[in-house]
Amino acid sequence: MGEFELIAKLFAPLATERGALGLKDDAAFLKFTSNKETVVTMDVLVEGVHFPSDTPPGWVAQKALGVNLSDLAAIGADPFGYILGLQIPEGRSVEWLTDFSKGLQLWQEVHSISLLGGDTVVTPGPFTISITAIGSVNDGKALLRSGAQTGDQVFVSGTIGDAFLGLGVVRGEHEVLTDDDRIFLKERFHLPKPRLRLGSLLKNYGSSAIDVSDGLVADAGHIAATSGVRLEIDADKVPLSDAAQAAITAGIASIGELITGGDDYELLFTMAQGRSLPLTSQDVQVTEIGCVVEGAGVGVTLGGKELPLSKKGYTHL
Amino acid sequence: MGEFELIAKLFAPLATERGALGLKDDAAFLKFTSNKETVVTMDVLVEGVHFPSDTPPGWVAQKALGVNLSDLAAIGADPFGYILGLQIPEGRSVEWLTDFSKGLQLWQEVHSISLLGGDTVVTPGPFTISITAIGSVNDGKALLRSGAQTGDQVFVSGTIGDAFLGLGVVRGEHEVLTDDDRIFLKERFHLPKPRLRLGSLLKNYGSSAIDVSDGLVADAGHIAATSGVRLEIDADKVPLSDAAQAAITAGIASIGELITGGDDYELLFTMAQGRSLPLTSQDVQVTEIGCVVEGAGVGVTLGGKELPLSKKGYTHL
Repeated sequence: MGEFELIAKLFAPLATERGALGLKDDAAFLKFTSNKETVVTMDVLVEGVHFPSDTPPGWVAQKALGVNLSDLAAIGADPFGYILGLQIPEGRSVEWLTDFSKGLQLWQEVHSISLLGGDTVVTPGPFTISITAIGSVNDGKALLRSGAQTGDQVFVSGTIGDAFLGLGVVRGEHEVLTDDDRIFLKERFHLPKPRLRLGSLLKNYGSSAIDVSDGLVADAGHIAATSGVRLEIDADKVPLSDAAQAAITAGIASIGELITGGDDYELLFTMAQGRSLPLTSQDVQVTEIGCVVEGAGVGVTLGGKELPLSKKGYTHL
Repeated sequence: MGEFELIAKLFAPLATERGALGLKDDAAFLKFTSNKETVVTMDVLVEGVHFPSDTPPGWVAQKALGVNLSDLAAIGADPFGYILGLQIPEGRSVEWLTDFSKGLQLWQEVHSISLLGGDTVVTPGPFTISITAIGSVNDGKALLRSGAQTGDQVFVSGTIGDAFLGLGVVRGEHEVLTDDDRIFLKERFHLPKPRLRLGSLLKNYGSSAIDVSDGLVADAGHIAATSGVRLEIDADKVPLSDAAQAAITAGIASIGELITGGDDYELLFTMAQGRSLPLTSQDVQVTEIGCVVEGAGVGVTLGGKELPLSKKGYTHL
């Protein structure tokens, strides 16, 4: 099946937005109301680097879309659609690509977005997905990394370290954990949930935000550097799942590893003291984990003492 | 040098547009005046597939940007900026990447555009560039593939087949040609010129357009299919460079190969009979090469007889 047939069969049905012109042109058209800015972000995922080769294709699709939507969530943007660049190794089966397209479709429906366009090429290298996600935000309302102020509190959504542990599970490690915990952790690695509703709230309440992809400490460092402040994080307060707690109890992971591991795709954000988010029971939980002070960089304490960290960023597979 | 240092050193200076936030956030912001639509297009270029491995890095950059800007040209859009996804093989030198970034800078200056954001990852595969180019066009003014009408004339800009021959030169073929011709053809392969000014004119004069990337006949087929018409092309009228003419005279290429070879990045367009473009002496030449009739597909004649073509599309390296 050639490029054009493949596009027509698998991907044209995903181009639900009128401006995508059914993928029949080389470009897509979009227009937002005059009080909105267009927000554009890109993430590239390489097989064997960002996801293992034996990952189910539908999960690959959901992760690729998920991490891009997560970038929009961190800005408080409403997602609109995406441009899909696929590099397909010779001999990749139509079944695999069909399942991949079904994964895209699933998340398109969940998040009410459309494929807008893209490019498909054959590569001698690994399967690779480049997604440019496009959304919109009201003028001046975008939540940036640069807005943290001295005196703000630091928060994080969900739980931290699950994806780091999930990568271990995918590699066949952590057999001491229960099957339920292993399944939970593996899903947390493969299927990040973009915190779009939280981001949408935060743009009216928060002072800065980032999605945790490089690791909690590294991403806190990005806020600190861009905002010109220092973030103090109390590792005792960092929210952990039961599975992650079990991993620590079993001695197969340390809190230091969990807060420097990557791929959480939770939102790390700062907010002025005294503000509280109007969260409902359906929203992801948020936890206060520290404060913003004068200075630079990130400090982490555990049991009141400085926690030395062997690495501050995330190394992929 | 890590990802963040690399981005800061080489690419942040290319993010001249305010909405790129100096590449310090994960997204870019853009806004056009209320009478304009945003146009988005993506092209992926793989080393060893779309350009040979020994191509000078500055040329790789210019080709990658050029083919994307060519898509905007075909729509009549004004380019604004681009999102850059880079997959860098382990061990690619900083010198190579520096020269690559200089190539981007050169074409940014020529076309008054800005880097807006992107993603950089390490890959076990070949060096690969995904570019999402962003431009704008006045509401309803975009020139599409679907607008060709029965009775229109068919035109093409510049000359056709040079890039096909240039690829041969790059591979060490065509030694019978003069050095000057070989250099000309090689440059035509490596450095496509996006016909932005012509596209900008065409949106007020043309009925449909496409940029010739898959080959003149194949791209004529895209217009025919999308517009629901048939394009008749007179191969005798297809404009050839002196170098391409020399190649035909020397018997190393046929007109059939030149009109099915790819990578010309000229504009193929249709226009109602009797209209003429207000071109100046600085503009690329355009040549009438056929007409739009009822039916489907593309017919090619040479010396009044149907020209049988062995392939209708372009196969990369």
